[in-house]
Amino acid sequence: MRFTLKELADAIGGTIDGDALIEVHSINTLTDAVAGQITFLSDSRFKKEMQNTAASAVILRQQDRDACPVTALIVENPYAAYAKVTNLLYPSRREEAGIHTSVVVGEGCEIATDVWIGPHSYVGKNVRIAPGCQIGPGCLIEDNVQIGANTVLLGNVTVMHDCNLGEGVLIHPGAVIGSDGFGQANDKGCWIKIPQIGRVLIENDVEIGANTTIDRGSIGDTVVEEGVKLDNLVHIAHNVRVGAHTVIAAGTGIAGSTTIGRNCMIGGSVGISGHLTIADNVTLTGRTTVLQSVKEAGVYSSGTPVEPNRQWHKNYTRFKQLDEMAKRIKTLEKMLATLEEKGN
Amino acid sequence: MRFTLKELADAIGGTIDGDALIEVHSINTLTDAVAGQITFLSDSRFKKEMQNTAASAVILRQQDRDACPVTALIVENPYAAYAKVTNLLYPSRREEAGIHTSVVVGEGCEIATDVWIGPHSYVGKNVRIAPGCQIGPGCLIEDNVQIGANTVLLGNVTVMHDCNLGEGVLIHPGAVIGSDGFGQANDKGCWIKIPQIGRVLIENDVEIGANTTIDRGSIGDTVVEEGVKLDNLVHIAHNVRVGAHTVIAAGTGIAGSTTIGRNCMIGGSVGISGHLTIADNVTLTGRTTVLQSVKEAGVYSSGTPVEPNRQWHKNYTRFKQLDEMAKRIKTLEKMLATLEEKGN
Amino acid sequence: MRFTLKELADAIGGTIDGDALIEVHSINTLTDAVAGQITFLSDSRFKKEMQNTAASAVILRQQDRDACPVTALIVENPYAAYAKVTNLLYPSRREEAGIHTSVVVGEGCEIATDVWIGPHSYVGKNVRIAPGCQIGPGCLIEDNVQIGANTVLLGNVTVMHDCNLGEGVLIHPGAVIGSDGFGQANDKGCWIKIPQIGRVLIENDVEIGANTTIDRGSIGDTVVEEGVKLDNLVHIAHNVRVGAHTVIAAGTGIAGSTTIGRNCMIGGSVGISGHLTIADNVTLTGRTTVLQSVKEAGVYSSGTPVEPNRQWHKNYTRFKQLDEMAKRIKTLEKMLATLEEKGN
Repeated sequence: MRFTLKELADAIGGTIDGDALIEVHSINTLTDAVAGQITFLSDSRFKKEMQNTAASAVILRQQDRDACPVTALIVENPYAAYAKVTNLLYPSRREEAGIHTSVVVGEGCEIATDVWIGPHSYVGKNVRIAPGCQIGPGCLIEDNVQIGANTVLLGNVTVMHDCNLGEGVLIHPGAVIGSDGFGQANDKGCWIKIPQIGRVLIENDVEIGANTTIDRGSIGDTVVEEGVKLDNLVHIAHNVRVGAHTVIAAGTGIAGSTTIGRNCMIGGSVGISGHLTIADNVTLTGRTTVLQSVKEAGVYSSGTPVEPNRQWHKNYTRFKQLDEMAKRIKTLEKMLATLEEKGN
Repeated sequence: MRFTLKELADAIGGTIDGDALIEVHSINTLTDAVAGQITFLSDSRFKKEMQNTAASAVILRQQDRDACPVTALIVENPYAAYAKVTNLLYPSRREEAGIHTSVVVGEGCEIATDVWIGPHSYVGKNVRIAPGCQIGPGCLIEDNVQIGANTVLLGNVTVMHDCNLGEGVLIHPGAVIGSDGFGQANDKGCWIKIPQIGRVLIENDVEIGANTTIDRGSIGDTVVEEGVKLDNLVHIAHNVRVGAHTVIAAGTGIAGSTTIGRNCMIGGSVGISGHLTIADNVTLTGRTTVLQSVKEAGVYSSGTPVEPNRQWHKNYTRFKQLDEMAKRIKTLEKMLATLEEKGN
Repeated sequence: MRFTLKELADAIGGTIDGDALIEVHSINTLTDAVAGQITFLSDSRFKKEMQNTAASAVILRQQDRDACPVTALIVENPYAAYAKVTNLLYPSRREEAGIHTSVVVGEGCEIATDVWIGPHSYVGKNVRIAPGCQIGPGCLIEDNVQIGANTVLLGNVTVMHDCNLGEGVLIHPGAVIGSDGFGQANDKGCWIKIPQIGRVLIENDVEIGANTTIDRGSIGDTVVEEGVKLDNLVHIAHNVRVGAHTVIAAGTGIAGSTTIGRNCMIGGSVGISGHLTIADNVTLTGRTTVLQSVKEAGVYSSGTPVEPNRQWHKNYTRFKQLDEMAKRIKTLEKMLATLEEKGN
């Protein structure tokens, strides 16, 4: 793919300061870009690196224009513009329509004619797959699943019975959608499995990372609202609701029946207990543990700092005395107050 | 499926207070249930929600009967009864017996005639699959695996060579049983892989969640005892033993050669070091880190609270001074004791 | 397999004190070994267990020889010797060369004649697979992947387009190599996916555990250097570089663009933020959280101890007062200093 800067500016919304007819064929970083490539400056702190760039053009904000030695594509949000330009220069790979002869398709399915289903995939009964979908090799799609238009399952993806995927959903390999929630009832020391009769509903434009698991609801559904982006190895338990346009980084787990607000940013390896509510616009930094609801927007964290092992061990041991230490401080304060009184 | 309350009471053990001939066809929550549905009250705190229920019947304890506006199915353990009733109303889906023509089966296998093996599965040599098993699509079962009666592999499950699965085991998609333990020996700066010659033994009635991994033993076996329930993305390392009827929530990892007791409840995203022993009846709350053996039954926890980021940062920094703070408190106490003596 | 001790000593480098013609056919632990088996003592603390061993021979250090009741195979590093002997006694299983008829292979592939590709695998276009490789059932290998000699994908492994695997690489089931990095740009409240145009480069002799995910670079590549060993359920984000001969235990996550040094030992369930640098020869104990670069070799840790829940709750609550406590100690110190001055 090749675009003139003018074509890019027209497509993504921006203005050009310099030669609008320059052509670029790929994108690279400020330091690695060469002629024929475009690059971007989204953080003014890296201005210095831009001054020596060999790129043909730089996507940047008006305020950084002066420091740019080459043609500039001026936008308000260079990082979003970088995303848009990259989507133009590197369109998604698409396989030709058709269902591979090795695919097993159950009765009663409705599969649009332009859908691709790769080798060794399995499609159960009464599955509906809308136009524009791409189902990679080795996928397992159980009975009664519905998949909206232009959704992509990259391969080795599992979608269990009765789950719904919206339009423009993208699922990476190894993800499992609709596995049973972890519902067990104790009966005199043994656990009885509780059939999980809810579904998973994935709304439009959701992305789901590799080996992520999303459990179906026990009663009622697990819902991932539109525009949510989940990284790899995330766990979404039964009856969780993830609000629209929330992003969740790798390794995070959300326990059952918790509701996550809209536009949240949840870091990697975060843990959130069950039956909580996280407000809209909450940021949880990586590795945070949340055992209570978070009721107001803001940035939240938990955890303790990394230290040389020997030093850590001393502080670690003291943690068990923290309550006692607090009480001793209080006692000292009282004693000192008494002493001072006497002194006067 | 449809049952009269009498049929349900007879099946699960309970008594009816009201019209025993009422029929129910499904289950729902106290607030969402409608006529024709049964619901349950397992926690008396939700009595209020019961008072307005539109369900045809409620499963509850005798003590909550008075607050119930409709027919009651009275039991000792409503949550277990809910599990049992749900199992009656929603029997497991079963595919018809037969091995799909695409399945590859190695030499020397013994597969019961009523077993289902779905498309694109692979069965190695000398595999034994007992009656009643259901092996979903895309499963990989290596040589010499033995699978007990009525075990279900839902699809895209991997069981490596020589592992044993008991009866009534249920494995969710993406789980890997019998991958190599992480055994590496350092030889002058390089790591030599230690062949993992043990197996994984899964006993009866174990459930294994999606994308969970259970490594084979290095020497000797990794054992998951009967009735254990593992959630998604759990990691069980080589030579671990998980005691009977223990439940482990999602994202938890147990390092090599650790023994977990019976009837333990291990929360999500817990981490347990290697070569430890956890006693019977231990509860570890979610996100707890265990670096030493836990020798007595009880509830254990670790971790620090979530806070607004700015506040957290101050406390986080102080953690490194905790040992020093403890010493300063001691010094203050001594100084004050001396001062007081002088004062007298 | 059967070896005389002499054959083993010749193969791995060591000397025999006792009967060099004794044959052994398998390996076992000090306590479980019987006649015909060899065992090893790598930690002198277990000398007592050796004194009663029924093994035919023990691999040990010269200094432990006296305590050994049977023939000894004396080496400098018994644990490495155990690894080497086990590799001799238990050679890797290998399937016969050939591509199963169910395998789908795209155009332009170069696959060496001695390669095995198991049933239901998919190989895209222009894939190169060097001699000696074993590709298990259900693997998904996308276009333009290159795989070096003697690399093994055990089954149900996914390698996305354009990624490179070196020689002697071993990948366990469920691993996903080359999934998209988690690159999202916010544009007025919605997230735009940033195409991930880099690759994953896996160098020689790397081992990758079950259900581990390694994301491709956004711009530029994600690199796992030679001899690295990754356990199960590890997450390596885009543009991470893992230095040679580093080991990473299960459940650990490394965020984007972080560089891990050589010969590091990273415990289980560790979390490392993005854009950091971890020096060579750093050990991070299990569950450590790293939010800043670690610039010097050494052993590092973080976290707080497990406690009975009630006690923990008190200390946990105090953590929020830690900064305030530190200030109160300082105040006390000042007050006391003033009092003492007055006293003099």
